[in-house]
Amino acid sequence: MSPTEPPNSTNIPDDGDLQLAPNGQLRHLLTMRGLDREQITELLDRSQTFVSEPGQAAVRSRALQGKTVANLFFEPSTRTRASFDLAAKRLGADVLNLDVNTSSRKKGESILDMIYTLEAMQVDAFVVRDAGSGIPGYIARHTNDNVSILNAGESDISHPTQALLDMLTIRQNKGRIEGLKVAIVGDIAHSRVARSASEALVTLGVGELRLVSPPDLAAEPGTVPDQARILYNLEEGLQDADVVMALRIQRERIGNLDGILGIDEYFATYGISHERMKLAAPDAIVMHPGPMNRGIEIESTLADSASSVITKQVRNGVAVRMAILSTVINTVDTR
Amino acid sequence: MSPTEPPNSTNIPDDGDLQLAPNGQLRHLLTMRGLDREQITELLDRSQTFVSEPGQAAVRSRALQGKTVANLFFEPSTRTRASFDLAAKRLGADVLNLDVNTSSRKKGESILDMIYTLEAMQVDAFVVRDAGSGIPGYIARHTNDNVSILNAGESDISHPTQALLDMLTIRQNKGRIEGLKVAIVGDIAHSRVARSASEALVTLGVGELRLVSPPDLAAEPGTVPDQARILYNLEEGLQDADVVMALRIQRERIGNLDGILGIDEYFATYGISHERMKLAAPDAIVMHPGPMNRGIEIESTLADSASSVITKQVRNGVAVRMAILSTVINTVDTR
Amino acid sequence: MSPTEPPNSTNIPDDGDLQLAPNGQLRHLLTMRGLDREQITELLDRSQTFVSEPGQAAVRSRALQGKTVANLFFEPSTRTRASFDLAAKRLGADVLNLDVNTSSRKKGESILDMIYTLEAMQVDAFVVRDAGSGIPGYIARHTNDNVSILNAGESDISHPTQALLDMLTIRQNKGRIEGLKVAIVGDIAHSRVARSASEALVTLGVGELRLVSPPDLAAEPGTVPDQARILYNLEEGLQDADVVMALRIQRERIGNLDGILGIDEYFATYGISHERMKLAAPDAIVMHPGPMNRGIEIESTLADSASSVITKQVRNGVAVRMAILSTVINTVDTR
Repeated sequence: MSPTEPPNSTNIPDDGDLQLAPNGQLRHLLTMRGLDREQITELLDRSQTFVSEPGQAAVRSRALQGKTVANLFFEPSTRTRASFDLAAKRLGADVLNLDVNTSSRKKGESILDMIYTLEAMQVDAFVVRDAGSGIPGYIARHTNDNVSILNAGESDISHPTQALLDMLTIRQNKGRIEGLKVAIVGDIAHSRVARSASEALVTLGVGELRLVSPPDLAAEPGTVPDQARILYNLEEGLQDADVVMALRIQRERIGNLDGILGIDEYFATYGISHERMKLAAPDAIVMHPGPMNRGIEIESTLADSASSVITKQVRNGVAVRMAILSTVINTVDTR
Repeated sequence: MSPTEPPNSTNIPDDGDLQLAPNGQLRHLLTMRGLDREQITELLDRSQTFVSEPGQAAVRSRALQGKTVANLFFEPSTRTRASFDLAAKRLGADVLNLDVNTSSRKKGESILDMIYTLEAMQVDAFVVRDAGSGIPGYIARHTNDNVSILNAGESDISHPTQALLDMLTIRQNKGRIEGLKVAIVGDIAHSRVARSASEALVTLGVGELRLVSPPDLAAEPGTVPDQARILYNLEEGLQDADVVMALRIQRERIGNLDGILGIDEYFATYGISHERMKLAAPDAIVMHPGPMNRGIEIESTLADSASSVITKQVRNGVAVRMAILSTVINTVDTR
Repeated sequence: MSPTEPPNSTNIPDDGDLQLAPNGQLRHLLTMRGLDREQITELLDRSQTFVSEPGQAAVRSRALQGKTVANLFFEPSTRTRASFDLAAKRLGADVLNLDVNTSSRKKGESILDMIYTLEAMQVDAFVVRDAGSGIPGYIARHTNDNVSILNAGESDISHPTQALLDMLTIRQNKGRIEGLKVAIVGDIAHSRVARSASEALVTLGVGELRLVSPPDLAAEPGTVPDQARILYNLEEGLQDADVVMALRIQRERIGNLDGILGIDEYFATYGISHERMKLAAPDAIVMHPGPMNRGIEIESTLADSASSVITKQVRNGVAVRMAILSTVINTVDTR
């Protein structure tokens, strides 16, 4: 593709190769692909230093004082934007929140001119969320050396900070990723959460990765690691699982599923319940990236039970984003 | 009602009982009900310390440095949100501004899951505004112990920070509330301002509380303190009044009033004018919560006259919100 | 006009006379008119102190710590608002971002009541952008002595911070304004950028000011300085020019131009290209206020070439706004 032509569905290159600065340090965070076990572990270790217990004061530092972080959200988001916003502020950065409607983006200046403009205002890192695919990497290919791009959710394909917070949460509860049996359940086909988590889990040596979904919502070949087992049967997926991650499903999609008549039947077939969790390991944990559809993907009381780590995931999200921001912006500084 | 079912118009419990922490300190501010004279006086005294004179620098402190305040506005607001935003920033807090469309709230995750998510990001206080009734108290019943809820306007029923700034303004000008004759004039039926002010005035020992409105807009029985005199005649209401508070009326409502033909007649019958103020005490003050409809509720030149304290009310609003934020968040801290 | 009646197209007074405080210091920035060469030069000198090189940390100070800047945008803007937002934050000010829909402004409280309300919250400076004309000056006529108004773009008539950043950029590249040949090219008729730049250029002693446009888009008599040469021929306009400034044109307007059939013909007739720039001085610079329509007003590769200073303009924009904010707010302080 032309270097200044935005990507479309047929020309998306692999972003894994452009995340690192020439000195090997992490410069952008675009995808879990291309990060090795040591790099991910280092990020998790750093993230852990930003975690504080419920009821205790949030961890803060002045590491990014004088730096500017721009949240460039082409797709609406409350939770992820709030998480990045607080992460940047708790590091002392100035934050620019820009909610840019995708349709106005098409009519107005090119996305690169928008980025170059904000770069010229000395933005140090862009947090980019987009419903389409390829934009974060496209921007990363064209920014100045002293600017970092963080992918905050990209189409169905990548959500690396979510993967890191999921890994951190599993590690806090299980002490390791290696050797674990992990089941991810729901709308795998459309889930950037599932894809990024799968990539991270395999890199970190997961014992068994099961992707459980209705046949209509299974992963397309090549979109998930080869090690993943594609399953349609939830009982099989949950058997002895150490970790069960339910995914959000859009209600509209349920109506189009072959052989599933409605929400009740979806819950009966693919919903995670107390009863079904008896199949999993006795100390199994339940995860969900949020926002939850209680009673569809997950039994409401299970989400609030002792085996649920859903709130911890959110808490870890701020810590992971603080770790990433302070890592990439410092990388930039020291070159 | 089920503990996790949002309130509706038939099941709203009294919030006055849940504002205090077990140690008796103020934890939430939901309503003026349940606060006694000493508690209100203490809040007003504290608010006074945050007031500075026009032309002087705004009072600031670092009391809330490291704390996070989330403005969760389900009903649009420019003034009240700006006031809370500045109050939090001038205390050194990080501020998260979340304008959440009510309709998207219904489609999306439950309000409690949204709150739990933000709690997990270590938000210390939520400032909540909602066009419906019962939401601030509902949230307060379900938050963690270390989180405070401040009601920034709730349906027709409660607007406690407005009541506090009104009390502070009266006290600054009259030296006391006790024994004063106070007339509140306008759309009493739909006014959270009138209700919260009435409750505060009675608790603080107001001499006479007159609620003056067209018959169609009079308070429903039980919605205002028993001590209030319900009047339909403005002249009677203004007689020897020390304080006259005009309320905002929505223009659409005027068209539906029995026996009032239009805006001119509304102003002639219920508008506060220089001429009419001659009935009040010679040093009476005129108040309005804003935004004003000049020439409808109040004569324009009267709003700008020496007897008007409308600008002072706005100034005191920031001080009151600084006092409340620093009170409830410190309460939380010391438990 | 009545002192409290908002301006309309027939009653706009000259704002040049009200920008200075009684002591001669700059208090508001509404227009380039009324500022003399010494005043502009002082602002440019001060702006230069806030410029840092690409890749270096943004210049910061605590000059406005404890001060509050409100961005009051009645017309949507991403770039200009971001620039003011960062300028204020990098000086340590608290920033209130208020995007106010013009239609809601008409329905709601008067604009002066909105200003008085925010003044009472101790806002020190208002940054005002409006699609209509006369509003920034109207507000400046009615604010308290300790409040400053900065015009961030007003209809077709004034955009003074843009003019200052343009002057700073020219001065950085050419060492002076005096004696230069400057061509401004495009939709002159509807350009507040062209008008404010023209005024500043003439005050600073420009050698020759050429305003080049299709006849339909030429400046109305009296809207630009008398010294300006109005030209319809681009070749003539570019001859030996030291500075070429392309203006943004709205695509809809091109369709209505007499004798120009479409975008391609517009570019062929009035677009700035590498080829055409051969007519200009060998070291001529190319400017554009952004956002660019690449391939319409300017050849895309020219915008990215070594003769383009477009990115510098953006960078200088933050510096100019820091200079203005710290100048006017300090003026206010010391009276």
